Amino acid sequence: MTDFTLEQQRIGIVGLGLMGGSLALALRQHCRSLQGIDPQPAVRQRALQDSVVDAVAEDLATGIAEVDLLIVATPVRATTDLLAQLPDLRPDGLMVMDLGSTKQAVVAAMDSLPSPFATIGGHPMCGKETPGLAHATTDLYQGQTFVLCRTNRTTAEAEQAALHLVAAIGARPVFLTPTQHDRIVAEVSHLPYLVSAALMRVVADEQKWDISASGFRDVSRLAGSDTRMMLDILMTNRVEVLRTLQQYQTDLAVLESLLQEGNEAGLVDWLAEARVRHAAYRRHMSALPSERKPD
Amino acid sequence: MTDFTLEQQRIGIVGLGLMGGSLALALRQHCRSLQGIDPQPAVRQRALQDSVVDAVAEDLATGIAEVDLLIVATPVRATTDLLAQLPDLRPDGLMVMDLGSTKQAVVAAMDSLPSPFATIGGHPMCGKETPGLAHATTDLYQGQTFVLCRTNRTTAEAEQAALHLVAAIGARPVFLTPTQHDRIVAEVSHLPYLVSAALMRVVADEQKWDISASGFRDVSRLAGSDTRMMLDILMTNRVEVLRTLQQYQTDLAVLESLLQEGNEAGLVDWLAEARVRHAAYRRHMSALPSERKPD
Repeated sequence: MTDFTLEQQRIGIVGLGLMGGSLALALRQHCRSLQGIDPQPAVRQRALQDSVVDAVAEDLATGIAEVDLLIVATPVRATTDLLAQLPDLRPDGLMVMDLGSTKQAVVAAMDSLPSPFATIGGHPMCGKETPGLAHATTDLYQGQTFVLCRTNRTTAEAEQAALHLVAAIGARPVFLTPTQHDRIVAEVSHLPYLVSAALMRVVADEQKWDISASGFRDVSRLAGSDTRMMLDILMTNRVEVLRTLQQYQTDLAVLESLLQEGNEAGLVDWLAEARVRHAAYRRHMSALPSERKPD
Repeated sequence: MTDFTLEQQRIGIVGLGLMGGSLALALRQHCRSLQGIDPQPAVRQRALQDSVVDAVAEDLATGIAEVDLLIVATPVRATTDLLAQLPDLRPDGLMVMDLGSTKQAVVAAMDSLPSPFATIGGHPMCGKETPGLAHATTDLYQGQTFVLCRTNRTTAEAEQAALHLVAAIGARPVFLTPTQHDRIVAEVSHLPYLVSAALMRVVADEQKWDISASGFRDVSRLAGSDTRMMLDILMTNRVEVLRTLQQYQTDLAVLESLLQEGNEAGLVDWLAEARVRHAAYRRHMSALPSERKPD
Protein backbone atom coordinates (compact mmCIF):
# COMPACT_ATOMS: atom_id res chain seq x y z
CA MET A 1 0.00 0.00 0.00
CA THR A 2 1.48 3.30 -1.06
CA ASP A 3 0.59 6.56 0.63
CA PHE A 4 -1.21 7.62 -2.53
CA THR A 5 -4.09 10.03 -2.09
CA LEU A 6 -6.37 11.25 -4.83
CA GLU A 7 -6.62 14.64 -3.11
CA GLN A 8 -3.01 15.48 -4.09
CA GLN A 9 -3.54 14.69 -7.75
CA ARG A 10 -3.83 17.09 -10.63
CA ILE A 11 -6.16 15.14 -12.88
CA GLY A 12 -6.58 15.66 -16.62
CA ILE A 13 -9.55 14.27 -18.54
CA VAL A 14 -9.40 14.00 -22.33
CA GLY A 15 -12.86 14.03 -23.86
CA LEU A 16 -15.58 15.85 -21.94
CA GLY A 17 -18.46 13.76 -23.27
CA LEU A 18 -20.98 11.75 -21.29
CA MET A 19 -18.35 9.56 -19.62
CA GLY A 20 -15.53 12.11 -19.19
CA GLY A 21 -17.95 14.85 -18.13
CA SER A 22 -19.69 12.61 -15.59
CA LEU A 23 -16.31 11.52 -14.26
CA ALA A 24 -15.26 15.15 -13.82
CA LEU A 25 -18.48 15.94 -11.95
CA ALA A 26 -18.00 12.91 -9.67
CA LEU A 27 -14.32 13.73 -8.99
CA ARG A 28 -14.71 17.43 -8.22
CA GLN A 29 -14.39 17.15 -4.44
CA HIS A 30 -11.76 14.42 -4.61
CA CYS A 31 -8.70 15.87 -6.34
CA ARG A 32 -6.37 18.87 -6.30
CA SER A 33 -7.37 20.15 -9.74
CA LEU A 34 -9.29 19.06 -12.83
CA GLN A 35 -8.03 19.90 -16.30
CA GLY A 36 -10.39 19.23 -19.21
CA ILE A 37 -9.09 18.63 -22.74
CA ASP A 38 -11.55 18.64 -25.61
CA PRO A 39 -11.26 19.72 -29.26
CA GLN A 40 -14.78 21.22 -29.39
CA PRO A 41 -14.99 24.91 -28.37
CA ALA A 42 -18.67 24.62 -27.34
CA VAL A 43 -17.88 21.70 -25.04
CA ARG A 44 -14.94 23.53 -23.45
CA GLN A 45 -17.09 26.61 -22.93
CA ARG A 46 -19.90 24.66 -21.32
CA ALA A 47 -17.46 22.72 -19.11
CA LEU A 48 -16.02 25.97 -17.75
CA GLN A 49 -19.39 27.68 -17.45
CA ASP A 50 -20.89 24.77 -15.47
CA SER A 51 -17.68 24.37 -13.39
CA VAL A 52 -17.30 20.78 -14.57
CA VAL A 53 -13.51 21.33 -14.57
CA ASP A 54 -11.15 24.04 -13.28
CA ALA A 55 -9.46 24.71 -16.62
CA VAL A 56 -9.78 23.64 -20.24
CA ALA A 57 -7.38 23.16 -23.14
CA GLU A 58 -7.92 22.48 -26.80
CA ASP A 59 -4.77 20.53 -27.51
CA LEU A 60 -3.21 17.65 -25.70
CA ALA A 61 0.29 19.17 -25.35
CA THR A 62 -1.01 22.15 -23.38
CA GLY A 63 -3.61 20.16 -21.49
CA ILE A 64 -1.32 17.50 -20.08
CA ALA A 65 1.68 19.73 -19.27
CA GLU A 66 0.82 19.95 -15.56
CA VAL A 67 -1.17 16.82 -14.93
CA ASP A 68 -0.24 13.90 -12.65
CA LEU A 69 -2.99 11.50 -13.66
CA LEU A 70 -4.47 11.53 -17.16
CA ILE A 71 -7.80 9.87 -17.88
CA VAL A 72 -8.59 9.26 -21.53
CA ALA A 73 -12.33 9.23 -22.18
CA THR A 74 -12.45 9.07 -25.96
CA PRO A 75 -13.53 6.39 -28.46
CA VAL A 76 -11.11 3.45 -28.36
CA ARG A 77 -9.12 4.22 -31.49
CA ALA A 78 -8.80 7.88 -30.55
CA THR A 79 -7.38 6.60 -27.25
CA THR A 80 -4.76 4.37 -28.88
CA ASP A 81 -3.74 7.25 -31.20
CA LEU A 82 -3.45 9.56 -28.19
CA LEU A 83 -1.38 7.10 -26.17
CA ALA A 84 1.15 6.93 -29.03
CA GLN A 85 1.68 10.70 -28.80
CA LEU A 86 2.39 10.77 -25.07
CA PRO A 87 6.15 9.96 -25.06
CA ASP A 88 6.88 13.03 -27.19
CA LEU A 89 4.59 15.32 -25.20
CA ARG A 90 5.59 14.16 -21.74
CA PRO A 91 9.03 12.46 -21.90
CA ASP A 92 9.02 12.50 -18.07
CA GLY A 93 5.96 10.22 -18.10
CA LEU A 94 2.75 10.36 -16.06
CA MET A 95 -0.01 8.07 -14.83
CA VAL A 96 -2.57 7.18 -17.51
CA MET A 97 -5.91 5.43 -17.27
CA ASP A 98 -8.68 5.14 -19.87
CA LEU A 99 -12.43 4.48 -19.95
CA GLY A 100 -12.51 2.65 -23.29
CA SER A 101 -15.19 0.10 -24.17
CA THR A 102 -12.71 -2.53 -25.43
CA LYS A 103 -9.46 -3.32 -23.69
CA GLN A 104 -7.07 -5.42 -25.80
CA ALA A 105 -6.13 -2.60 -28.19
CA VAL A 106 -5.82 -0.03 -25.41
CA VAL A 107 -3.78 -2.25 -23.10
CA ALA A 108 -1.43 -3.16 -25.99
CA ALA A 109 -0.88 0.58 -26.59
CA MET A 110 -0.34 1.11 -22.86
CA ASP A 111 2.12 -1.81 -22.75
CA SER A 112 4.29 -0.20 -25.40
CA LEU A 113 4.73 3.13 -23.60
CA PRO A 114 8.23 3.70 -22.16
CA SER A 115 8.93 3.09 -18.48
CA PRO A 116 8.35 6.58 -17.05
CA PHE A 117 4.68 5.95 -17.82
CA ALA A 118 2.46 4.12 -15.35
CA THR A 119 -0.74 2.85 -16.95
CA ILE A 120 -3.92 0.93 -16.17
CA GLY A 121 -6.90 0.16 -18.38
CA GLY A 122 -10.42 0.94 -17.18
CA HIS A 123 -13.95 0.36 -18.40
CA PRO A 124 -16.92 1.52 -16.33
CA MET A 125 -19.97 -0.67 -17.13
CA CYS A 126 -22.44 2.15 -17.32
CA GLY A 127 -23.54 4.82 -19.72
CA LYS A 128 -26.59 6.11 -21.51
CA GLU A 129 -27.65 6.09 -25.14
CA THR A 130 -27.57 9.89 -25.07
CA PRO A 131 -23.96 11.02 -25.51
CA GLY A 132 -22.37 14.37 -24.71
CA LEU A 133 -21.56 16.66 -21.78
CA ALA A 134 -25.19 17.85 -21.74
CA HIS A 135 -26.19 14.41 -20.43
CA ALA A 136 -23.35 14.03 -17.93
CA THR A 137 -24.43 13.47 -14.32
CA THR A 138 -22.57 13.33 -11.00
CA ASP A 139 -23.99 9.90 -10.15
CA LEU A 140 -23.48 8.07 -13.46
CA TYR A 141 -20.84 5.77 -11.90
CA GLN A 142 -22.54 5.34 -8.52
CA GLY A 143 -23.00 1.65 -7.72
CA GLN A 144 -21.74 0.50 -11.13
CA THR A 145 -19.13 -2.10 -11.99
CA PHE A 146 -15.77 -0.62 -13.07
CA VAL A 147 -13.51 -3.09 -14.86
CA LEU A 148 -9.75 -2.57 -14.42
CA CYS A 149 -7.11 -4.23 -16.62
CA ARG A 150 -3.49 -4.33 -15.50
CA THR A 151 -0.86 -3.59 -18.17
CA ASN A 152 2.90 -4.24 -18.35
CA ARG A 153 3.20 -0.65 -17.10
CA THR A 154 0.85 -0.93 -14.12
CA THR A 155 2.78 0.22 -11.07
CA ALA A 156 1.60 -0.12 -7.47
CA GLU A 157 0.87 3.59 -7.53
CA ALA A 158 -1.16 3.39 -10.75
CA GLU A 159 -3.23 0.56 -9.29
CA GLN A 160 -3.79 2.57 -6.09
CA ALA A 161 -4.76 5.60 -8.13
CA ALA A 162 -7.31 3.58 -10.07
CA LEU A 163 -8.77 2.00 -6.93
CA HIS A 164 -8.99 5.37 -5.15
CA LEU A 165 -10.66 6.89 -8.19
CA VAL A 166 -13.17 4.05 -8.51
CA ALA A 167 -13.96 4.32 -4.79
CA ALA A 168 -14.31 8.12 -4.99
CA ILE A 169 -16.99 7.87 -7.69
CA GLY A 170 -18.86 5.11 -5.83
CA ALA A 171 -18.15 2.29 -8.30
CA ARG A 172 -17.12 -1.33 -7.69
CA PRO A 173 -13.73 -2.43 -9.10
CA VAL A 174 -13.41 -5.78 -10.91
CA PHE A 175 -10.04 -6.89 -12.30
CA LEU A 176 -10.13 -8.77 -15.62
CA THR A 177 -7.53 -9.52 -18.27
CA PRO A 178 -8.10 -7.62 -21.54
CA THR A 179 -9.00 -10.90 -23.24
CA GLN A 180 -11.56 -11.83 -20.58
CA HIS A 181 -12.99 -8.33 -20.70
CA ASP A 182 -13.39 -8.19 -24.46
CA ARG A 183 -15.02 -11.63 -24.60
CA ILE A 184 -17.56 -10.79 -21.88
CA VAL A 185 -18.48 -7.31 -23.11
CA ALA A 186 -18.99 -8.66 -26.63
CA GLU A 187 -21.88 -10.62 -25.10
CA VAL A 188 -23.32 -8.34 -22.42
CA SER A 189 -22.76 -5.01 -24.13
CA HIS A 190 -21.86 -5.12 -27.84
CA LEU A 191 -24.35 -7.84 -28.84
CA PRO A 192 -27.28 -6.11 -27.03
CA TYR A 193 -26.34 -2.93 -28.88
CA LEU A 194 -26.34 -4.64 -32.29
CA VAL A 195 -29.58 -6.49 -31.53
CA SER A 196 -31.19 -3.19 -30.58
CA ALA A 197 -29.82 -1.29 -33.59
CA ALA A 198 -31.00 -3.97 -36.04
CA LEU A 199 -34.49 -3.82 -34.50
CA MET A 200 -34.59 -0.05 -35.00
CA ARG A 201 -33.41 -0.44 -38.61
CA VAL A 202 -36.12 -3.02 -39.40
CA VAL A 203 -39.00 -1.31 -37.56
CA ALA A 204 -38.35 2.11 -39.03
CA ASP A 205 -41.87 3.33 -39.76
CA GLU A 206 -43.81 6.01 -37.89
CA GLN A 207 -47.18 4.33 -38.36
CA LYS A 208 -45.83 1.27 -36.59
CA TRP A 209 -44.27 3.32 -33.79
CA ASP A 210 -47.75 4.71 -33.10
CA ILE A 211 -48.88 1.25 -31.97
CA SER A 212 -45.67 0.48 -30.10
CA ALA A 213 -45.38 0.29 -26.33
CA SER A 214 -42.73 0.05 -23.61
CA GLY A 215 -41.35 -3.27 -24.89
CA PHE A 216 -40.28 -1.78 -28.19
CA ARG A 217 -38.99 1.32 -26.45
CA ASP A 218 -36.71 -0.67 -24.13
CA VAL A 219 -35.41 -3.18 -26.66
CA SER A 220 -34.63 -0.41 -29.19
CA ARG A 221 -33.07 2.00 -26.68
CA LEU A 222 -29.41 1.21 -27.36
CA ALA A 223 -29.87 1.98 -31.07
CA GLY A 224 -29.38 5.62 -30.08
CA SER A 225 -25.78 5.03 -28.99
CA ASP A 226 -22.95 7.14 -30.38
CA THR A 227 -21.94 5.92 -33.84
CA ARG A 228 -18.21 6.72 -33.61
CA MET A 229 -17.93 5.05 -30.20
CA MET A 230 -19.69 1.95 -31.52
CA LEU A 231 -17.59 1.81 -34.70
CA ASP A 232 -14.39 1.80 -32.65
CA ILE A 233 -15.82 -0.90 -30.39
CA LEU A 234 -16.70 -3.11 -33.35
CA MET A 235 -13.37 -2.55 -35.11
CA THR A 236 -11.29 -3.29 -31.99
CA ASN A 237 -13.35 -6.30 -30.87
CA ARG A 238 -14.28 -7.79 -34.23
CA VAL A 239 -13.35 -11.39 -33.47
CA GLU A 240 -15.39 -11.62 -30.27
CA VAL A 241 -18.30 -9.60 -31.66
CA LEU A 242 -18.44 -11.86 -34.72
CA ARG A 243 -18.31 -14.94 -32.52
CA THR A 244 -21.25 -13.87 -30.35
CA LEU A 245 -23.20 -12.42 -33.30
CA GLN A 246 -22.90 -15.76 -35.09
CA GLN A 247 -24.14 -17.62 -31.99
CA TYR A 248 -27.06 -15.24 -31.93
CA GLN A 249 -27.81 -15.75 -35.63
CA THR A 250 -27.66 -19.51 -35.13
CA ASP A 251 -30.21 -19.25 -32.35
CA LEU A 252 -32.53 -17.15 -34.52
CA ALA A 253 -32.14 -19.70 -37.34
CA VAL A 254 -33.28 -22.44 -34.94
CA LEU A 255 -36.27 -20.30 -34.03
CA GLU A 256 -37.04 -19.65 -37.69
CA SER A 257 -37.06 -23.39 -38.45
CA LEU A 258 -39.35 -24.10 -35.51
CA LEU A 259 -41.74 -21.42 -36.76
CA GLN A 260 -41.59 -22.68 -40.35
CA GLU A 261 -42.42 -26.20 -39.18
CA GLY A 262 -45.05 -25.00 -36.70
CA ASN A 263 -43.14 -27.16 -34.20
CA GLU A 264 -45.02 -26.35 -31.00
CA ALA A 265 -43.02 -28.59 -28.67
CA GLY A 266 -39.80 -27.10 -30.02
CA LEU A 267 -41.12 -23.56 -29.69
CA VAL A 268 -42.20 -24.17 -26.10
CA ASP A 269 -38.69 -25.38 -25.28
CA TRP A 270 -37.12 -22.38 -27.02
CA LEU A 271 -39.40 -19.90 -25.23
CA ALA A 272 -39.16 -21.63 -21.84
CA GLU A 273 -35.36 -21.64 -21.93
CA ALA A 274 -35.37 -17.85 -22.45
CA ARG A 275 -37.82 -17.38 -19.61
CA VAL A 276 -35.95 -19.67 -17.20
CA ARG A 277 -32.68 -17.89 -17.97
CA HIS A 278 -34.31 -14.50 -17.49
CA ALA A 279 -35.68 -15.57 -14.10
CA ALA A 280 -32.18 -16.78 -13.10
CA TYR A 281 -30.70 -13.48 -14.29
CA ARG A 282 -33.22 -11.50 -12.23
CA ARG A 283 -32.54 -13.60 -9.13
CA HIS A 284 -28.79 -13.25 -9.64
CA MET A 285 -28.95 -9.48 -10.03
CA SER A 286 -31.35 -8.92 -7.13
CA ALA A 287 -29.05 -10.96 -4.87
CA LEU A 288 -26.20 -8.52 -5.55
CA PRO A 289 -25.60 -5.82 -2.97
CA SER A 290 -27.88 -2.92 -3.91
CA GLU A 291 -25.01 -0.66 -4.88
CA ARG A 292 -24.03 -3.16 -7.60
CA LYS A 293 -27.38 -3.32 -9.39
CA PRO A 294 -27.58 -1.57 -12.74
CA ASP A 295 -29.46 1.68 -12.35
CA MET B 1 -74.90 6.96 -30.58
CA THR B 2 -76.86 4.59 -28.37
CA ASP B 3 -77.72 5.37 -24.78
CA PHE B 4 -75.28 2.69 -23.63
CA THR B 5 -73.67 3.23 -20.24
CA LEU B 6 -70.99 1.07 -18.71
CA GLU B 7 -72.46 1.67 -15.24
CA GLN B 8 -75.46 -0.56 -16.07
CA GLN B 9 -73.31 -3.47 -17.20
CA ARG B 10 -72.66 -6.71 -15.41
CA ILE B 11 -69.15 -7.43 -16.66
CA GLY B 12 -67.43 -10.83 -16.67
CA ILE B 13 -63.68 -11.23 -17.09
CA VAL B 14 -62.22 -14.62 -18.05
CA GLY B 15 -58.63 -14.97 -16.92
CA LEU B 16 -57.58 -12.94 -13.88
CA GLY B 17 -53.94 -12.63 -14.87
CA LEU B 18 -51.92 -9.46 -15.36
CA MET B 19 -54.22 -8.09 -18.08
CA GLY B 20 -57.59 -9.34 -16.82
CA GLY B 21 -56.75 -8.49 -13.22
CA SER B 22 -55.57 -4.98 -14.11
CA LEU B 23 -58.71 -4.47 -16.19
CA ALA B 24 -60.90 -5.51 -13.25
CA LEU B 25 -59.07 -3.08 -10.95
CA ALA B 26 -59.48 -0.26 -13.49
CA LEU B 27 -63.19 -1.01 -14.07
CA ARG B 28 -64.26 -1.32 -10.42
CA GLN B 29 -65.95 2.07 -10.17
CA HIS B 30 -67.36 1.96 -13.68
CA CYS B 31 -69.78 -0.98 -13.88
CA ARG B 32 -72.70 -2.57 -12.06
CA SER B 33 -70.83 -5.75 -11.11
CA LEU B 34 -67.62 -7.62 -11.86
CA GLN B 35 -67.58 -11.40 -12.20
CA GLY B 36 -64.18 -13.10 -12.40
CA ILE B 37 -63.73 -16.48 -14.05
CA ASP B 38 -60.45 -18.34 -13.57
CA PRO B 39 -59.58 -22.06 -13.33
CA GLN B 40 -56.93 -21.55 -10.62
CA PRO B 41 -58.26 -21.69 -7.02
CA ALA B 42 -55.38 -19.55 -5.67
CA VAL B 43 -56.11 -16.83 -8.24
CA ARG B 44 -59.84 -16.84 -7.44
CA GLN B 45 -59.10 -16.65 -3.72
CA ARG B 46 -56.71 -13.75 -4.14
CA ALA B 47 -59.14 -11.91 -6.46
CA LEU B 48 -61.90 -12.12 -3.84
CA GLN B 49 -59.61 -11.34 -0.92
CA ASP B 50 -58.22 -8.23 -2.63
CA SER B 51 -61.71 -7.21 -3.88
CA VAL B 52 -60.49 -7.29 -7.48
CA VAL B 53 -63.96 -8.60 -8.47
CA ASP B 54 -67.33 -9.00 -6.73
CA ALA B 55 -67.67 -12.72 -7.36
CA VAL B 56 -65.64 -15.57 -8.83
CA ALA B 57 -66.42 -18.76 -10.70
CA GLU B 58 -64.29 -21.69 -11.71
CA ASP B 59 -66.15 -22.70 -14.86
CA LEU B 60 -67.36 -20.66 -17.75
CA ALA B 61 -70.99 -21.87 -17.69
CA THR B 62 -71.55 -20.62 -14.13
CA GLY B 63 -69.44 -17.53 -14.59
CA ILE B 64 -71.19 -16.13 -17.64
CA ALA B 65 -74.79 -16.99 -16.68
CA GLU B 66 -75.57 -13.46 -15.50
CA VAL B 67 -73.14 -11.34 -17.45
CA ASP B 68 -73.98 -8.67 -20.06
CA LEU B 69 -70.47 -7.99 -21.33
CA LEU B 70 -67.83 -10.70 -21.33
CA ILE B 71 -64.15 -9.84 -21.65
CA VAL B 72 -61.84 -12.70 -22.52
CA ALA B 73 -58.31 -12.13 -21.18
CA THR B 74 -56.66 -15.45 -21.93
CA PRO B 75 -53.93 -16.58 -24.35
CA VAL B 76 -55.17 -16.32 -27.94
CA ARG B 77 -55.90 -20.00 -28.58
CA ALA B 78 -57.65 -20.37 -25.24
CA THR B 79 -59.79 -17.43 -26.38
CA THR B 80 -60.76 -19.02 -29.71
CA ASP B 81 -61.60 -22.29 -27.90
CA LEU B 82 -63.72 -20.39 -25.42
CA LEU B 83 -65.58 -18.45 -28.11
CA ALA B 84 -66.60 -21.74 -29.75
CA GLN B 85 -68.29 -22.83 -26.51
CA LEU B 86 -70.40 -19.72 -26.07
CA PRO B 87 -73.40 -20.59 -28.29
CA ASP B 88 -74.11 -23.69 -26.14
CA LEU B 89 -73.61 -21.90 -22.84
CA ARG B 90 -75.50 -18.71 -23.67
CA PRO B 91 -77.89 -19.38 -26.60
CA ASP B 92 -79.42 -15.95 -25.89
CA GLY B 93 -76.06 -14.34 -26.77
CA LEU B 94 -74.14 -11.57 -25.02
CA MET B 95 -71.56 -8.91 -25.81
CA VAL B 96 -68.02 -10.27 -26.06
CA MET B 97 -64.68 -8.50 -26.30
CA ASP B 98 -61.17 -9.90 -25.92
CA LEU B 99 -57.68 -8.64 -25.06
CA GLY B 100 -55.73 -11.07 -27.25
CA SER B 101 -52.28 -10.29 -28.65
CA THR B 102 -53.14 -11.37 -32.22
CA LYS B 103 -56.42 -10.55 -33.91
CA GLN B 104 -57.02 -12.53 -37.11
CA ALA B 105 -57.73 -15.85 -35.37
CA VAL B 106 -59.89 -14.23 -32.67
CA VAL B 107 -61.90 -12.07 -35.07
CA ALA B 108 -62.52 -15.12 -37.32
CA ALA B 109 -63.88 -16.98 -34.28
CA MET B 110 -66.01 -13.95 -33.36
CA ASP B 111 -67.30 -13.70 -36.94
CA SER B 112 -68.61 -17.24 -36.80
CA LEU B 113 -70.70 -16.78 -33.65
CA PRO B 114 -74.46 -16.74 -34.26
CA SER B 115 -76.38 -13.46 -34.45
CA PRO B 116 -77.48 -13.04 -30.82
CA PHE B 117 -73.81 -12.41 -30.07
CA ALA B 118 -72.31 -8.94 -30.44
CA THR B 119 -68.50 -9.01 -30.60
CA ILE B 120 -65.49 -6.76 -30.96
CA GLY B 121 -61.79 -7.60 -30.85
CA GLY B 122 -59.46 -5.68 -28.56
CA HIS B 123 -55.73 -5.52 -27.92
CA PRO B 124 -54.33 -3.10 -25.34
CA MET B 125 -50.72 -2.24 -26.26
CA CYS B 126 -49.35 -2.51 -22.76
CA GLY B 127 -48.23 -5.17 -20.35
CA LYS B 128 -45.28 -6.23 -18.30
CA GLU B 129 -42.91 -9.16 -18.52
CA THR B 130 -44.15 -10.30 -15.09
CA PRO B 131 -47.44 -12.14 -15.57
CA GLY B 132 -50.16 -12.92 -13.03
CA LEU B 133 -52.70 -11.22 -10.79
CA ALA B 134 -49.93 -10.45 -8.27
CA HIS B 135 -48.54 -7.92 -10.77
CA ALA B 136 -51.89 -6.40 -11.80
CA THR B 137 -52.21 -2.65 -11.26
CA THR B 138 -55.09 -0.19 -11.54
CA ASP B 139 -53.16 2.07 -13.93
CA LEU B 140 -51.76 -0.52 -16.36
CA TYR B 141 -53.97 0.79 -19.19
CA GLN B 142 -53.71 4.49 -18.33
CA GLY B 143 -52.50 6.46 -21.35
CA GLN B 144 -51.90 3.35 -23.46
CA THR B 145 -53.04 2.58 -27.00
CA PHE B 146 -55.98 0.13 -27.16
CA VAL B 147 -56.48 -1.41 -30.60
CA LEU B 148 -60.07 -2.31 -31.53
CA CYS B 149 -60.98 -4.61 -34.44
CA ARG B 150 -64.54 -4.68 -35.78
CA THR B 151 -65.98 -8.10 -36.58
CA ASN B 152 -68.98 -9.23 -38.66
CA ARG B 153 -70.82 -9.29 -35.34
CA THR B 154 -69.88 -5.80 -34.16
CA THR B 155 -73.12 -3.97 -33.35
CA ALA B 156 -73.42 -0.27 -32.58
CA GLU B 157 -73.89 -1.24 -28.93
CA ALA B 158 -70.78 -3.46 -28.87
CA GLU B 159 -68.70 -0.65 -30.36
CA GLN B 160 -70.09 1.80 -27.79
CA ALA B 161 -69.37 -0.68 -25.02
CA ALA B 162 -65.78 -1.03 -26.18
CA LEU B 163 -65.28 2.73 -26.50
CA HIS B 164 -66.80 3.38 -23.06
CA LEU B 165 -64.62 0.68 -21.55
CA VAL B 166 -61.45 2.02 -23.19
CA ALA B 167 -62.32 5.54 -21.99
CA ALA B 168 -63.09 4.31 -18.46
CA ILE B 169 -59.62 2.76 -18.09
CA GLY B 170 -57.89 5.85 -19.53
CA ALA B 171 -56.67 4.29 -22.77
CA ARG B 172 -56.71 5.62 -26.35
CA PRO B 173 -58.77 3.64 -28.91
CA VAL B 174 -57.30 2.94 -32.38
CA PHE B 175 -59.35 1.00 -34.95
CA LEU B 176 -57.39 -1.39 -37.17
CA THR B 177 -58.36 -4.34 -39.32
CA PRO B 178 -57.15 -7.70 -37.95
CA THR B 179 -54.68 -7.96 -40.85
CA GLN B 180 -53.25 -4.48 -40.22
CA HIS B 181 -53.03 -5.23 -36.52
CA ASP B 182 -51.23 -8.54 -36.89
CA ARG B 183 -48.72 -7.13 -39.37
CA ILE B 184 -47.84 -4.17 -37.15
CA VAL B 185 -47.62 -6.06 -33.86
CA ALA B 186 -45.37 -8.68 -35.49
CA GLU B 187 -42.87 -5.81 -35.85
CA VAL B 188 -43.40 -3.64 -32.78
CA SER B 189 -44.21 -6.39 -30.28
CA HIS B 190 -43.48 -9.96 -31.38
CA LEU B 191 -40.10 -9.28 -33.01
CA PRO B 192 -38.81 -7.29 -29.99
CA TYR B 193 -39.86 -10.22 -27.81
CA LEU B 194 -37.99 -12.77 -29.94
CA VAL B 195 -34.92 -10.54 -30.21
CA SER B 196 -34.89 -10.21 -26.42
CA ALA B 197 -35.47 -13.92 -25.78
CA ALA B 198 -32.67 -14.95 -28.17
CA LEU B 199 -30.30 -12.54 -26.37
CA MET B 200 -31.15 -14.13 -23.02
CA ARG B 201 -30.63 -17.61 -24.47
CA VAL B 202 -27.19 -16.71 -25.86
CA VAL B 203 -25.93 -14.71 -22.86
CA ALA B 204 -26.94 -17.26 -20.27
CA ASP B 205 -23.98 -17.26 -17.91
CA GLU B 206 -23.85 -15.77 -14.38
CA GLN B 207 -20.23 -14.68 -14.66
CA LYS B 208 -21.18 -12.57 -17.65
CA TRP B 209 -24.25 -11.14 -15.94
CA ASP B 210 -21.92 -9.87 -13.19
CA ILE B 211 -20.35 -7.46 -15.68
CA SER B 212 -23.64 -6.49 -17.33
CA ALA B 213 -25.33 -3.12 -16.95
CA SER B 214 -28.62 -1.42 -17.74
CA GLY B 215 -28.30 -1.95 -21.51
CA PHE B 216 -28.37 -5.73 -21.15
CA ARG B 217 -31.13 -5.49 -18.56
CA ASP B 218 -33.41 -3.48 -20.86
CA VAL B 219 -32.79 -5.38 -24.08
CA SER B 220 -33.29 -8.76 -22.32
CA ARG B 221 -36.38 -7.71 -20.32
CA LEU B 222 -39.05 -9.18 -22.60
CA ALA B 223 -37.41 -12.63 -22.37
CA GLY B 224 -39.31 -13.00 -19.08
CA SER B 225 -42.71 -12.91 -20.85
CA ASP B 226 -45.24 -15.67 -20.31
CA THR B 227 -44.37 -18.74 -22.41
CA ARG B 228 -47.95 -19.89 -23.12
CA MET B 229 -49.02 -16.40 -24.15
CA MET B 230 -46.04 -16.10 -26.48
CA LEU B 231 -46.56 -19.58 -27.98
CA ASP B 232 -50.14 -18.69 -28.90
CA ILE B 233 -48.97 -15.40 -30.38
CA LEU B 234 -46.38 -17.13 -32.54
CA MET B 235 -48.74 -19.90 -33.66
CA THR B 236 -51.55 -17.49 -34.60
CA ASN B 237 -49.29 -14.94 -36.30
CA ARG B 238 -46.71 -17.23 -37.88
CA VAL B 239 -46.71 -15.71 -41.36
CA GLU B 240 -46.15 -12.14 -40.20
CA VAL B 241 -43.69 -13.13 -37.47
CA LEU B 242 -41.67 -15.14 -39.99
CA ARG B 243 -41.72 -12.26 -42.45
CA THR B 244 -40.35 -9.73 -39.95
CA LEU B 245 -37.94 -12.25 -38.38
CA GLN B 246 -36.46 -12.93 -41.83
CA GLN B 247 -36.06 -9.19 -42.48
CA TYR B 248 -34.26 -8.98 -39.16
CA GLN B 249 -32.00 -11.93 -39.97
CA THR B 250 -31.18 -10.38 -43.34
CA ASP B 251 -30.15 -7.18 -41.62
CA LEU B 252 -27.93 -9.07 -39.18
CA ALA B 253 -26.38 -10.95 -42.13
CA VAL B 254 -25.50 -7.59 -43.73
CA LEU B 255 -23.92 -6.52 -40.47
CA GLU B 256 -21.99 -9.80 -40.21
CA SER B 257 -20.54 -9.32 -43.72
CA LEU B 258 -19.51 -5.76 -42.94
CA LEU B 259 -17.76 -6.98 -39.79
CA GLN B 260 -16.08 -9.89 -41.61
CA GLU B 261 -14.76 -7.49 -44.26
CA GLY B 262 -13.83 -4.83 -41.70
CA ASN B 263 -15.79 -2.49 -43.98
CA GLU B 264 -15.67 0.72 -41.94
CA ALA B 265 -17.65 2.89 -44.34
CA GLY B 266 -20.38 0.25 -44.52
CA LEU B 267 -20.43 -0.15 -40.74
CA VAL B 268 -20.72 3.60 -40.24
CA ASP B 269 -23.73 3.64 -42.57
CA TRP B 270 -25.32 0.68 -40.80
CA LEU B 271 -24.79 2.23 -37.35
CA ALA B 272 -25.81 5.73 -38.42
CA GLU B 273 -29.08 4.50 -39.94
CA ALA B 274 -30.03 2.87 -36.62
CA ARG B 275 -29.15 6.04 -34.73
CA VAL B 276 -31.03 8.35 -37.11
CA ARG B 277 -34.11 6.10 -36.92
CA HIS B 278 -33.91 6.01 -33.14
CA ALA B 279 -33.73 9.80 -32.99
CA ALA B 280 -36.78 10.02 -35.29
CA TYR B 281 -38.62 7.49 -33.09
CA ARG B 282 -37.84 9.50 -29.95
CA ARG B 283 -39.02 12.73 -31.60
CA HIS B 284 -42.17 11.04 -32.84
CA MET B 285 -43.03 9.59 -29.44
CA SER B 286 -42.25 12.75 -27.49
CA ALA B 287 -44.52 14.73 -29.85
CA LEU B 288 -47.45 12.50 -28.90
CA PRO B 289 -49.83 13.85 -26.26
CA SER B 290 -48.37 12.79 -22.90
CA GLU B 291 -51.16 10.32 -22.20
CA ARG B 292 -50.16 8.35 -25.32
CA LYS B 293 -46.52 7.82 -24.43
CA PRO B 294 -45.56 4.32 -23.35
CA ASP B 295 -45.02 4.28 -19.60
